[in-house]
Amino acid sequence: MRLSRYFIPTLKENPQEAQILSHRFMLRAGMIHQEAQGIYSWLPLGLRVLKKIENIIREEQNKAGALEVLMPTLQPADLWRESGRFDAYGKEMLRIKDRHERDLLYSPTNEEMITAIFRKFVRSYRDLPKMFYQINWKFRDEIRPRFGVMRGREFLMKDNYSFDLNYEDAVNAYDLMYKTYLKTFKRLGVKVIPTQADSGPIGGDLSHEFCILAETGETTLYYDPIYDTLGSDFDHKDISELKKYYAATDEKHKPGDAPIPEEQLSVARGTEVGHIFYFGTKYSEVMNAKIVNPKGEEVLAHMGSYGIGVSRLVGAIIDASHDDKGIIWPESVAPYRIGLINLRSGDANCDKVSNDIYTQLTNNNEEVLYDDRDQRLGVKLADMELIGLPWQLIIGPKGIAQNTVELKCRKTNESQELSLESALNHMTKNNARAA
Amino acid sequence: MRLSRYFIPTLKENPQEAQILSHRFMLRAGMIHQEAQGIYSWLPLGLRVLKKIENIIREEQNKAGALEVLMPTLQPADLWRESGRFDAYGKEMLRIKDRHERDLLYSPTNEEMITAIFRKFVRSYRDLPKMFYQINWKFRDEIRPRFGVMRGREFLMKDNYSFDLNYEDAVNAYDLMYKTYLKTFKRLGVKVIPTQADSGPIGGDLSHEFCILAETGETTLYYDPIYDTLGSDFDHKDISELKKYYAATDEKHKPGDAPIPEEQLSVARGTEVGHIFYFGTKYSEVMNAKIVNPKGEEVLAHMGSYGIGVSRLVGAIIDASHDDKGIIWPESVAPYRIGLINLRSGDANCDKVSNDIYTQLTNNNEEVLYDDRDQRLGVKLADMELIGLPWQLIIGPKGIAQNTVELKCRKTNESQELSLESALNHMTKNNARAA
Repeated sequence: MRLSRYFIPTLKENPQEAQILSHRFMLRAGMIHQEAQGIYSWLPLGLRVLKKIENIIREEQNKAGALEVLMPTLQPADLWRESGRFDAYGKEMLRIKDRHERDLLYSPTNEEMITAIFRKFVRSYRDLPKMFYQINWKFRDEIRPRFGVMRGREFLMKDNYSFDLNYEDAVNAYDLMYKTYLKTFKRLGVKVIPTQADSGPIGGDLSHEFCILAETGETTLYYDPIYDTLGSDFDHKDISELKKYYAATDEKHKPGDAPIPEEQLSVARGTEVGHIFYFGTKYSEVMNAKIVNPKGEEVLAHMGSYGIGVSRLVGAIIDASHDDKGIIWPESVAPYRIGLINLRSGDANCDKVSNDIYTQLTNNNEEVLYDDRDQRLGVKLADMELIGLPWQLIIGPKGIAQNTVELKCRKTNESQELSLESALNHMTKNNARAA
Repeated sequence: MRLSRYFIPTLKENPQEAQILSHRFMLRAGMIHQEAQGIYSWLPLGLRVLKKIENIIREEQNKAGALEVLMPTLQPADLWRESGRFDAYGKEMLRIKDRHERDLLYSPTNEEMITAIFRKFVRSYRDLPKMFYQINWKFRDEIRPRFGVMRGREFLMKDNYSFDLNYEDAVNAYDLMYKTYLKTFKRLGVKVIPTQADSGPIGGDLSHEFCILAETGETTLYYDPIYDTLGSDFDHKDISELKKYYAATDEKHKPGDAPIPEEQLSVARGTEVGHIFYFGTKYSEVMNAKIVNPKGEEVLAHMGSYGIGVSRLVGAIIDASHDDKGIIWPESVAPYRIGLINLRSGDANCDKVSNDIYTQLTNNNEEVLYDDRDQRLGVKLADMELIGLPWQLIIGPKGIAQNTVELKCRKTNESQELSLESALNHMTKNNARAA
């Protein structure tokens, strides 16, 4: 994409309304535009990141055998009266009347609707296990929306619901999602800690929050230091072993809770981006979602739900991966992989070399953002640092005279003068490694 | 995908609530589930079709240089007060109050919001032309929603907005979208007629509706028979030549309007699936969206909008492509390309051959729906006809004894007994031709 034809309205100054780093960078990098309190438009650069995150989540959900559906954002109140939540949900639920004065609501979550679909069409244990998920916008009318997409009102979420014949099968579904989440977050290029969360009246250990480590995280995490060393073997471990390691948010943690001495615990800030939860027959009971077991008896379906905050992740990844100059995108979610900078647009040589490289890379299916604008060198370099593409390929008159280009890695800040061929070769190698 | 693990709740009987063919087939094929009047959940099979259509539209929009954004479904009323439409829009606009009693609405279209984004960030003719599009859910509170997804309340739409310096440039944008639409619908496997539509007080010929030909279409079309012969060269013609050929819906057509004798006109039923529209400075004027021209003067931006009904297309394609037994999907939008039917699940030979073929095809990145259910032969065959995948590969004990499989083309109804190798080869060739 040529920047001259694109649309990245970057800001030089920090916007006053933004209190946290990710919100500042998202506004400054022209990724989003606020339309109302906690309601945003996604501009081209932001939307590309959102879609990349969404696709990685979708691929891992599909691999786990979950079936994608799409439920409407507006739902009839009667469905929510069955579970008692139309009245119980509180003011975060946006209630609406249509032209015929019928009660609707903007879905904040979807246990009711998916349970209604399940009970209508699924009757036999032979059709189990089943997992349905969707990636769709939800609305929660937060009293004080803030921190940009981190606590917005209209937000994108992946929500998955599992249906099983009994507790044991439901635990299998839960464990499958636990592992799927570890794989998903690893692919997203972020480090997460799965913390034990409150599971409400059901009890047990079947509720985990997945938190991204970030200095500006919303909560404090206390966890077994083994998480710091597990590294990339994280998701290869046996699930029952993984679940033994202690980790809790400050809400839940009490000194002495952990099976290891308090002073040996790692302490860090983190932000919740996922939550998995087994809730048994809570909804199947009130909504009468029954299945016939192998003995021919009707039994209540055991359910779980599994959420990931997709739009929230855009902010959380930025909070976890940035420096003073801007965002540092993990390769898997970067809006473009390569930023090609023509340091002197208008100079015939620079234009020719830059255009040639751009054509070559795009023909090669590389995702390239090409800064061909008639802009000052300082602006171009600062903008490219701010938007944080993994690789910068910098073309200037000095280099051209020596047949070299500058290849810079945004993450390490390392810069090399290379022949064009070597630079392209280098990036291809890195591409192969990342994939 | 193995059907035993999938979720296609087919119905044998025609649902009483469905008045038109596409609605009946979508319900019977388990593609959608009604949640409220004009509000649907998309079940796995339906969602796959919706996504395929969406992706083809997206690719063609991107090729035309349009930039994808995503605007929120809920928008502040104040923005719509600027254009006067918050009051003028009528009851189809769903008006909402949030917890702080602020007026919101569920966006039925997005001229206001995109104009506000444009005026905030774009100032110079150097940044033009610009086209922004999104593919997102809209809500229009139809008084009598009906015909399933053809006239729903919550519906998926691609809406694109162009911004240009002057009339001439705006016409270029318009023509570009005209051509893009022809390409898009051709890729979707349907025949469309671009009809001249009312362009309101602005006048001129810069409003066209694109209608899919279908016997059950909502309107009657009168058009130059050249459209019937243009065939696949349709989109290679010069745009000014194309626009000359007469075509109008019954709303607009008056005998004698056409430049050719009335009795020579083709007459057919059609359904509107797209609309392109130049509306000049209508919104830029009331919302003060100005740009600086090369002379340094501030001038109003010339705008157009370009819609495609994405969810409506699912129904419209079915109305245009089906037979008594069910849907006949064009290859480009089929939820799966191949339906593999194991006629006798449980038979060791049939299971082994079917499983092997399934593995081979999926390893080859073919999209295969494998009916491995323990079901009667008649049910399996009827279900496969109903859901309308382009190719059926039928495995039964008789064929296995003779080392053959049956390959059936859903569209032509032609069936061949072939060696497995020939069958696979045949489908690969057809794949190459379709791509």
